[in-house]
Amino acid sequence: MKLHLITGGAGFVAVNLARQLLKEGQAILAVDDLSRGKRELLAGFEQDPRFNFRQIDCSDADALSGAIDEMGARVDHVWHLAANSDIPAGIADPRIDRDRTYQTTFAVLEVMRRHECSELHFASSSAIYGDLGDQEIHEDIGPLQPISNYGAMKLASEAQIRAAVEAFLPRADIFRFPNVIGVPATHGVIVDFIRKLKATPDCLEVLGDGTQQKAYLHVDDLVDAMLHISRLDGRYKVFNIGPQDDGVTVRTIAELVRDRVSPGARISFGTGNRGWIGDVPRFRYSIQRLATTGWAPKLSSLEAVSRAIDQIASEEL
Amino acid sequence: MKLHLITGGAGFVAVNLARQLLKEGQAILAVDDLSRGKRELLAGFEQDPRFNFRQIDCSDADALSGAIDEMGARVDHVWHLAANSDIPAGIADPRIDRDRTYQTTFAVLEVMRRHECSELHFASSSAIYGDLGDQEIHEDIGPLQPISNYGAMKLASEAQIRAAVEAFLPRADIFRFPNVIGVPATHGVIVDFIRKLKATPDCLEVLGDGTQQKAYLHVDDLVDAMLHISRLDGRYKVFNIGPQDDGVTVRTIAELVRDRVSPGARISFGTGNRGWIGDVPRFRYSIQRLATTGWAPKLSSLEAVSRAIDQIASEEL
Repeated sequence: MKLHLITGGAGFVAVNLARQLLKEGQAILAVDDLSRGKRELLAGFEQDPRFNFRQIDCSDADALSGAIDEMGARVDHVWHLAANSDIPAGIADPRIDRDRTYQTTFAVLEVMRRHECSELHFASSSAIYGDLGDQEIHEDIGPLQPISNYGAMKLASEAQIRAAVEAFLPRADIFRFPNVIGVPATHGVIVDFIRKLKATPDCLEVLGDGTQQKAYLHVDDLVDAMLHISRLDGRYKVFNIGPQDDGVTVRTIAELVRDRVSPGARISFGTGNRGWIGDVPRFRYSIQRLATTGWAPKLSSLEAVSRAIDQIASEEL
Repeated sequence: MKLHLITGGAGFVAVNLARQLLKEGQAILAVDDLSRGKRELLAGFEQDPRFNFRQIDCSDADALSGAIDEMGARVDHVWHLAANSDIPAGIADPRIDRDRTYQTTFAVLEVMRRHECSELHFASSSAIYGDLGDQEIHEDIGPLQPISNYGAMKLASEAQIRAAVEAFLPRADIFRFPNVIGVPATHGVIVDFIRKLKATPDCLEVLGDGTQQKAYLHVDDLVDAMLHISRLDGRYKVFNIGPQDDGVTVRTIAELVRDRVSPGARISFGTGNRGWIGDVPRFRYSIQRLATTGWAPKLSSLEAVSRAIDQIASEEL
């Protein structure tokens, strides 16, 4: 038996990836320290004999290595999704991104070296680019100046992986995620807005002036792109993943959530076009490289937002 | 009294920087864990009341913070030079670059936040660029794909610093060092060749075919550039530092060392144009950005190599 190892295995993307891999007949070892991931998200898989879960902090190489040994199966594919996903928390305390993003990558690479795993699939982020103004953001652009510790530690992880490919690792994919939405939702602007409106149904308060515009990808499209990229040739592959449009403004998201959740509510905007430190106001994300490989998302940013609002509202209300 | 903090304070560059800062009337707190730095390099300063040394591992934020407290003086300028400098060692064991390069930067930033230090001057490296082929390497180029853990952890350090500037740090300079030579020499190709010829005076064995070409800067020019950049305006300044030429081949260095140390010796070359993993064969390094600020090195690569061979041979023989 061959196993796919998924770190951060009880998280939002991991659950969707696992579902797809199981559909394709693969076996899975999912690990998660459950600091942010939730065991109940795995409820649908627990009966499946091809799905295995271990509660492990994957920044501990020995623990992770031991979990693989216990399975008695070879691991070729490692999907490294474990990371801190709370950007403001990591700005307040840089240890969070160091320990959960940088160090998990470090330990995963050590374990892959020890177990001679052949392919690493890494969830990086558009946050590695920082604020490049109005330029179109393609994969080879510079300079890379991440403005959050989250982005900094994703870039630090990419750098480690690149050096590992030079030294010992046969293959690696770098997926530079956009904002990803869908269910099971754990955080993000849609969840925030829905919860705020549940608490105060007459008014939705929005950080910033609502003009921030971002591209959003539905998690179904994301997983589809990850699997597509993993099957392309190449030793070290770096891809932006995202929709082929300029995105949706915060104002539009606020209005769509309001219409779905609490149609009569007033929306109150703040000032400035940054919601918080580490948040880039506008972002032109090129997925030209991915498009030339024949992949396209099924949903636009607006369609993804609309579907996700529907899905999350059904979960939350 | 105001202090300049120098981490890696008993290393090659630090000693040269300290000498210049003392000349300019500054006071210094130099810290070094002496894992690679050498106490005896500081012999010339020990009588100077403005020079203070503490044996500390600066990856330990509490220890570093305590050393500053003990001095009872304000630190505005931090020159962060501590790092692993042994590239092959870091490829064999990635923990070395993590602990000595990545984590020292992490701790230095934590200490600067605690003590409200205002300026970080960071010794980064041309190794962050990886192998970009024949392109001219300017500061804004992409993609950044370091091929050694050394380069990866320097890039990871830059990323941390950039995020810190966004969050709390008033000013930072990033110096992307080239190959730097001079005395007191601790490692590098010139030292290697001289020591090899001391051991076997009739033959100098060279890794690779000798066609590798690199730019070299003399440490006197390096320190001059660092001080120059530190006085320029700007919150976050990134500069390549190097000579304004295409560099010198390994073959030329081997011949110059042979002529100085053991004129009759045979030089035996290997094959291939890479000496070791993580070594980039050819490198066109642009210092246009620095040149436009009015700085130029006093020595070319060839002049720097010639002077350094003379200086190191005097030390070693």
